[in-house]
Amino acid sequence: MITIDLNADIGEGFGAYEWGSDETLLEYVSSANIACGFHAGDPHTMSKTVESCLKHGVAIGAHPGLPDRLGFGRREMAVTPEEAGHFVLYQVGALQSFVRAYDGRLQHVKLHGALYHMAARDEQMAQTIVKVIRLLEPELLLYGPSGSCLHAAADSEGIRFISEGFADRAYMPDGSLVPRHLPGAVIENTESAVNQAVSLARAGQVQTLCLHGDTPKAKEHAEQIAHRLRSSGVSIQPPGRI
Amino acid sequence: MITIDLNADIGEGFGAYEWGSDETLLEYVSSANIACGFHAGDPHTMSKTVESCLKHGVAIGAHPGLPDRLGFGRREMAVTPEEAGHFVLYQVGALQSFVRAYDGRLQHVKLHGALYHMAARDEQMAQTIVKVIRLLEPELLLYGPSGSCLHAAADSEGIRFISEGFADRAYMPDGSLVPRHLPGAVIENTESAVNQAVSLARAGQVQTLCLHGDTPKAKEHAEQIAHRLRSSGVSIQPPGRI
Amino acid sequence: MITIDLNADIGEGFGAYEWGSDETLLEYVSSANIACGFHAGDPHTMSKTVESCLKHGVAIGAHPGLPDRLGFGRREMAVTPEEAGHFVLYQVGALQSFVRAYDGRLQHVKLHGALYHMAARDEQMAQTIVKVIRLLEPELLLYGPSGSCLHAAADSEGIRFISEGFADRAYMPDGSLVPRHLPGAVIENTESAVNQAVSLARAGQVQTLCLHGDTPKAKEHAEQIAHRLRSSGVSIQPPGRI
Amino acid sequence: MITIDLNADIGEGFGAYEWGSDETLLEYVSSANIACGFHAGDPHTMSKTVESCLKHGVAIGAHPGLPDRLGFGRREMAVTPEEAGHFVLYQVGALQSFVRAYDGRLQHVKLHGALYHMAARDEQMAQTIVKVIRLLEPELLLYGPSGSCLHAAADSEGIRFISEGFADRAYMPDGSLVPRHLPGAVIENTESAVNQAVSLARAGQVQTLCLHGDTPKAKEHAEQIAHRLRSSGVSIQPPGRI
Repeated sequence: MITIDLNADIGEGFGAYEWGSDETLLEYVSSANIACGFHAGDPHTMSKTVESCLKHGVAIGAHPGLPDRLGFGRREMAVTPEEAGHFVLYQVGALQSFVRAYDGRLQHVKLHGALYHMAARDEQMAQTIVKVIRLLEPELLLYGPSGSCLHAAADSEGIRFISEGFADRAYMPDGSLVPRHLPGAVIENTESAVNQAVSLARAGQVQTLCLHGDTPKAKEHAEQIAHRLRSSGVSIQPPGRI
Repeated sequence: MITIDLNADIGEGFGAYEWGSDETLLEYVSSANIACGFHAGDPHTMSKTVESCLKHGVAIGAHPGLPDRLGFGRREMAVTPEEAGHFVLYQVGALQSFVRAYDGRLQHVKLHGALYHMAARDEQMAQTIVKVIRLLEPELLLYGPSGSCLHAAADSEGIRFISEGFADRAYMPDGSLVPRHLPGAVIENTESAVNQAVSLARAGQVQTLCLHGDTPKAKEHAEQIAHRLRSSGVSIQPPGRI
Repeated sequence: MITIDLNADIGEGFGAYEWGSDETLLEYVSSANIACGFHAGDPHTMSKTVESCLKHGVAIGAHPGLPDRLGFGRREMAVTPEEAGHFVLYQVGALQSFVRAYDGRLQHVKLHGALYHMAARDEQMAQTIVKVIRLLEPELLLYGPSGSCLHAAADSEGIRFISEGFADRAYMPDGSLVPRHLPGAVIENTESAVNQAVSLARAGQVQTLCLHGDTPKAKEHAEQIAHRLRSSGVSIQPPGRI
Repeated sequence: MITIDLNADIGEGFGAYEWGSDETLLEYVSSANIACGFHAGDPHTMSKTVESCLKHGVAIGAHPGLPDRLGFGRREMAVTPEEAGHFVLYQVGALQSFVRAYDGRLQHVKLHGALYHMAARDEQMAQTIVKVIRLLEPELLLYGPSGSCLHAAADSEGIRFISEGFADRAYMPDGSLVPRHLPGAVIENTESAVNQAVSLARAGQVQTLCLHGDTPKAKEHAEQIAHRLRSSGVSIQPPGRI
């Protein structure tokens, strides 16, 4: 039987500010990436979000980003690989604290935004980050783009890598994403997103699909994708349980 | 044989800013309280400081504070007990990550500045903080003022409490500290500080003495206090080893 | 003819986070208090918000708060009067820069949240803040609660004070607000809020009424209050124009 | 008679953290660039530093940087020209507030660290920044590297540009600085720095020389450079007075 993981970035509010539609997404995803207080999130949001994941039986991941709250961690910064490693260690530990206190288990790490992209293409940064994850807890899974430097580093360090695909982003023939500034980069039509989700799942090239919560159609996409995957005989479950 | 712990707040630099005299203090103390990135400290400073402690064989504690870097965590803020608990959980976890990655062990928690004072006198805040520490790791020791709400909460939750005294702060007859703004509150004369350290250690009322690193006489005080304690037959060691 | 000012706190988003319903409120208010980057707001939000005010012909005020973004400036902090004065000077200047660059004029200052309440009851803080405003620009108006320390300080320093009332907060017989945690503190019924607005305006005790933008009924309240004031013969205009 | 300006970056402490040797430098320089709270500095430091400049009769400049306090504004960030313009407007206004309240005059703007370098080579960013400076106050001078995009933008917008040279940084034959990571990039020998200062001043290619305050030899360099310039018949004065 084919299985796939559905993941979503959640816990990205901050203080009085809300973000996305976490409670809705948690009904459909099998794993969640929780912001850790650098690009978004804060101790109270993290506490509440970890509890929501545990209540919904959703596998928990840390979602560390760059220390740029104003830019939501989306702007690249000239940090060294060592600095990036320290950012990851700090944030994963902070989240792990809530998970442990509430008697849960941290399943994975997925980098956020600019840090995700920088580490995907920078060999040394990827290696440094993977190494600190291994030092911290070698059972942690790492989510990221297939074929990236993160992928290679995880393989060489013995960290299990989970290749991520996107239901609502268009792909180019070489497997890379159509850049966001180009027309058609984001798939807004639900039927198209659902079809892409099913074909990605059945093709078996990715092990997790990322759903977005900050769009008007977030709930509709999540609901339809989950429903159609199941009716196509695909089982939705977090990779940590396999 | 009488034993006492000497502790110091370290790792309180931030980015390009240096603070205190960590390397000097680490030669004399048996345990250290490392800033966790809210009132002071940052991922790189924490990484470096944890490594220094491990190199010197000094027991490691987390030193969480209020999220007020501009005020160095010294200004009281109207946070709820629950918020304070989340601040502690976040910061202790962040530090624990470095300790674990570098193959060390976290011995204790000591609150910083305004958070230390607020939790010492606020029963509900003390209980909330002690509870999250127990949930996270019940073997963690808690350093704090003898007879405080933190002390009572630790006793009732089964967290081992380590009473802290100050060699260089004058005490009043009731055992409380002379407030900082009063004359004579800080003992600047080395001989007086050394004498107070020895008598506090021999009286057995406190289990740890705090040394300050941000004064001109930091090195001299630390050196003389450590030397005189030893020559008075007092053994200096962290409480976690007893 | 009776005139009154309607004001609203706006520009309280931050980075990717949105807040309130600024564009809606700007259709009804005569003056706006723009967050200055400490409790909320940021340079881009400030730029955009100043431009919106100028487009709508709404008088511009600075809305400085405490440096506590996580707490949205609502938590009291033990800052000194001098520190509070510097916070105000910094933030008013930052906002003034956008106003000046876009060829506008800064009409007033209204403190935010905990800073508003602290300065209202602390004589020395009120005086320090009013003095820095006078040093910066003596023509600036100061919005605040009637009879407060801020009011007294403004009177004694020659700063014109604009007494503020609330359409949607219940008052006690002594003229103070029913504290937020008590039942009935917030008036949610539109008709009641409208009636209170009209009677406050006609009684002449307040010169400006604050409308809130972060409630579900924000638009309805604003629209109805503005409409009924006008139909009751009350002219809505900013105090700086009188 | 030949005149030159000596400038220094000051006010770069933060909260409890000190930085550099401001009081020493203020005895020798004719103008100072004050940090504005993003990469360094805070409202209290700015207040104190503006007062020091006024006391010493040193011309005051704003020294805005990137919002990266952890990196001291030295790490490049992928900000848009528009974002950079807003950062500058915000910070210059904040500083101007203190200058105005204390009855001084803001003479110039000098960008800090990564922002200085990014704007020097990015035409659109340079133009956007120069435009907001002109909108805010067209009499402000702009300090920066000769021949840079900032220089060109200032010329085209009618902002007076002041070319900056470095006494203690080695130059390459094309006039650019030897990159910091190469040997010999920083001139540590006082005699060499003094000689370079005098020859740069006499050659007339730069109108201001930057002195550094965060080196062990800061005082010695400043003292010797100022002394030798004067004894070589060069007058030290801020460009705003010429």
